[in-house]
Amino acid sequence: MAATPSFDDGARYVRELTEFLSIPSISADPARKPELRQAAEWVAKQLSFARGRVVETDGHPVVLGEWLEAPGAPTILVYGHYDVQPPGNEAEWETPPFSPAVRDGRIYARGATDDKGPMLVPLKVAEAFLDELGALPLNVRFLFEGEEEVGSPSLAGVLRDHRRELEADLVVSADGAMWRASEPSIAIAAKGLLALDVVVTGPRSDLHSGRHGGAVQNPLHALAQLLAGLHEPDGTVAVAGFYDDVRALSVADRDALARVPFDEEAYRVEVGVPALHGEPGFTALERLWTRPTLEVNGVEGGGSFTVIPRQACAHVTCRLVPDQDPAAIFDAVRGHLDAQCPPGVELAVEAAAGAVPAYAIPADHPAVRAATKALAAVYPRDETLLVRIGGTLPAASLFQDALGLKTLLFSFSTADEQLHAPNEFFRLSRLDEGLRAWAELWRLLAQDG
Amino acid sequence: MAATPSFDDGARYVRELTEFLSIPSISADPARKPELRQAAEWVAKQLSFARGRVVETDGHPVVLGEWLEAPGAPTILVYGHYDVQPPGNEAEWETPPFSPAVRDGRIYARGATDDKGPMLVPLKVAEAFLDELGALPLNVRFLFEGEEEVGSPSLAGVLRDHRRELEADLVVSADGAMWRASEPSIAIAAKGLLALDVVVTGPRSDLHSGRHGGAVQNPLHALAQLLAGLHEPDGTVAVAGFYDDVRALSVADRDALARVPFDEEAYRVEVGVPALHGEPGFTALERLWTRPTLEVNGVEGGGSFTVIPRQACAHVTCRLVPDQDPAAIFDAVRGHLDAQCPPGVELAVEAAAGAVPAYAIPADHPAVRAATKALAAVYPRDETLLVRIGGTLPAASLFQDALGLKTLLFSFSTADEQLHAPNEFFRLSRLDEGLRAWAELWRLLAQDG
Repeated sequence: MAATPSFDDGARYVRELTEFLSIPSISADPARKPELRQAAEWVAKQLSFARGRVVETDGHPVVLGEWLEAPGAPTILVYGHYDVQPPGNEAEWETPPFSPAVRDGRIYARGATDDKGPMLVPLKVAEAFLDELGALPLNVRFLFEGEEEVGSPSLAGVLRDHRRELEADLVVSADGAMWRASEPSIAIAAKGLLALDVVVTGPRSDLHSGRHGGAVQNPLHALAQLLAGLHEPDGTVAVAGFYDDVRALSVADRDALARVPFDEEAYRVEVGVPALHGEPGFTALERLWTRPTLEVNGVEGGGSFTVIPRQACAHVTCRLVPDQDPAAIFDAVRGHLDAQCPPGVELAVEAAAGAVPAYAIPADHPAVRAATKALAAVYPRDETLLVRIGGTLPAASLFQDALGLKTLLFSFSTADEQLHAPNEFFRLSRLDEGLRAWAELWRLLAQDG
Repeated sequence: MAATPSFDDGARYVRELTEFLSIPSISADPARKPELRQAAEWVAKQLSFARGRVVETDGHPVVLGEWLEAPGAPTILVYGHYDVQPPGNEAEWETPPFSPAVRDGRIYARGATDDKGPMLVPLKVAEAFLDELGALPLNVRFLFEGEEEVGSPSLAGVLRDHRRELEADLVVSADGAMWRASEPSIAIAAKGLLALDVVVTGPRSDLHSGRHGGAVQNPLHALAQLLAGLHEPDGTVAVAGFYDDVRALSVADRDALARVPFDEEAYRVEVGVPALHGEPGFTALERLWTRPTLEVNGVEGGGSFTVIPRQACAHVTCRLVPDQDPAAIFDAVRGHLDAQCPPGVELAVEAAAGAVPAYAIPADHPAVRAATKALAAVYPRDETLLVRIGGTLPAASLFQDALGLKTLLFSFSTADEQLHAPNEFFRLSRLDEGLRAWAELWRLLAQDG
């Protein structure tokens, strides 16, 4: 099978996406349970050609389906999610978050780019193959979850309980995002995540800082010391053992990264800082893509009044790279903090549930090669960049652990499309490009298989 | 005149205090403006023997009055405040905060000990002198304000505008609190206060800590470094010049402090910390009473999500001792922070309005000697302690600056009476002792004068 469909029904695709985006499937909002189910049923109906069905979990349901009528061809598992982030402050939206609006070739709505627009792509690709050519070029299973925006708590159980129904050769994810709007890209790595809370407890209750200042250790002073001790002044993580398992960058790696067009000064202006900052000996892009980090995300304690607070807390996350073990890194960070804890307070360091190791797919993996060719067919004038993600893709790590499958990240979202922010949008040109690229990808994977 | 009144009308005093405490004169609550006026008028009526009058300010009114019919005798200015703290969470009160209730010899209500109970004492003393003896032993002016709990913003203007009406030889304050319930005490010093805000600003907006971690300075990291750099690990303030103007403790001072009964272990257990902590070379009591401090009262930035926050802020207060100039200390702290600010962020350090220098009255001041004798008459079995306050008394500093007057702190509040907390109370025994002590004090001051 060499042909791909024509995708000449774009207006209908936008109408269907509008319908999908009108369902406020906010997984973090317990009051939206009916809307989550409504969205799951909408997806299952789209999958009627693949025996689409809503399957219960301990949380929001998943939608499963499969079209397995290409004997001898490989089988892929398509992944995406139908839940969305909360809209935040609706006053910051130019048009209401659940009343999709098309402006300047973009569709604006919560979930437009994360992930309803991108996950509609493989559904419409399958439909078009069947309508125009009577069959898909390969076997396709589908798994769409409704809890991605709340950390996918049920996904591991689904993979365990439905292992047989999910057997495949490769996962292709419609979630994720292209790095930039200026060129096509494929992400071949994502950092892992370890979250931990640091809690310093001092006196039995808040104390008046005038009456008691100078006699007791202030938990905020102790916490500041502990947090300051986590980094060297140059930005290097000061925790003993933190970098032990990190592979050194090879000359080839560094050459490849140096060839990626990345203007540090333009990036500095974009994020709006007086100077970039971080581990010496690495370019900013090397740090962003290949070096593990430890960031304090939040600190809380006391207020604007004269108190020595009973407690001071920090939320910390580490982004991990391949070969770093989240449990070992947690032990190292906790050990470092315990050793540096000042006198007069008690320290508790606890890991949050759901640590995720780093994920990577080799740059020369057949799926990456096929995806590169598919993008070249759609973007003939642009070279496809192989990029890495500083963020974390828990699903890709889960598929590897639970199913032993690599995941090809093949989303047509773009990282600048206001995901998790007001005025989220999806470029309709990416919808069209995505349809053609996914069709070409399936054709190429079928050939390879 | 050698006699003092008998104060045999205690039941009526409690009824009147109950009436006063039933008025919710919460100065921080803009909706309570009528209740503030009601309380001021209640006080003015109590002062009818002294031409009591409600006087407007830019904020809540003050109540002034004077009885000046003791020619040749000294003149004192009695100070107190009729406003109260907000009640906080009313569910934490055993009885409603503005429905005064007597239990076990204590009257429970917001404002009972801060400052309505204590400020009623001089009113009833004057009334009893006039009723029983036909005259007061000395000239008395009265000044009660309604903004003490919000930082006395109008008080300096009142002292300036009513300078003639407030001429006196000494201020006697019914505000303040005795150190402990176990023995009588007179506070002869209070620390000054300098509040400042430290604001660290990094990127233009909050950044995803996965996508941008490792490339930019995190404002929370920078703030932690800055705050950690404010103290040596042993608790000494690390700011150059901070201690320059602090008088060394003399051998006599240390001997006097060592004679004050203060059990460090009991104090440690009371505040509930694993160990006391602070400047080496000083006892805990020396640190509490005589050493300047720098305390971080609050830190805010980011939250429990994966963000590099745009901004991180700390609220800091310094408690100052005699000879420390608040402006010079602010310059020293700001200079220290500026010099230590890490790269990649911007730092702003701003002083809050209303810095207050330390206040002290000499231990051998005639008013302190008279107060000590007055307490000995009421507490014949106890030695009166001369104590110092780690907190700040802005009014005493203002009286010194604006009127050139020393303030004798002669409150019958006790520091354990839940001031600013739920279930605030005032010991009715202190009411009785206060009446007798104030009467004796007036008699002794008249003799001295």
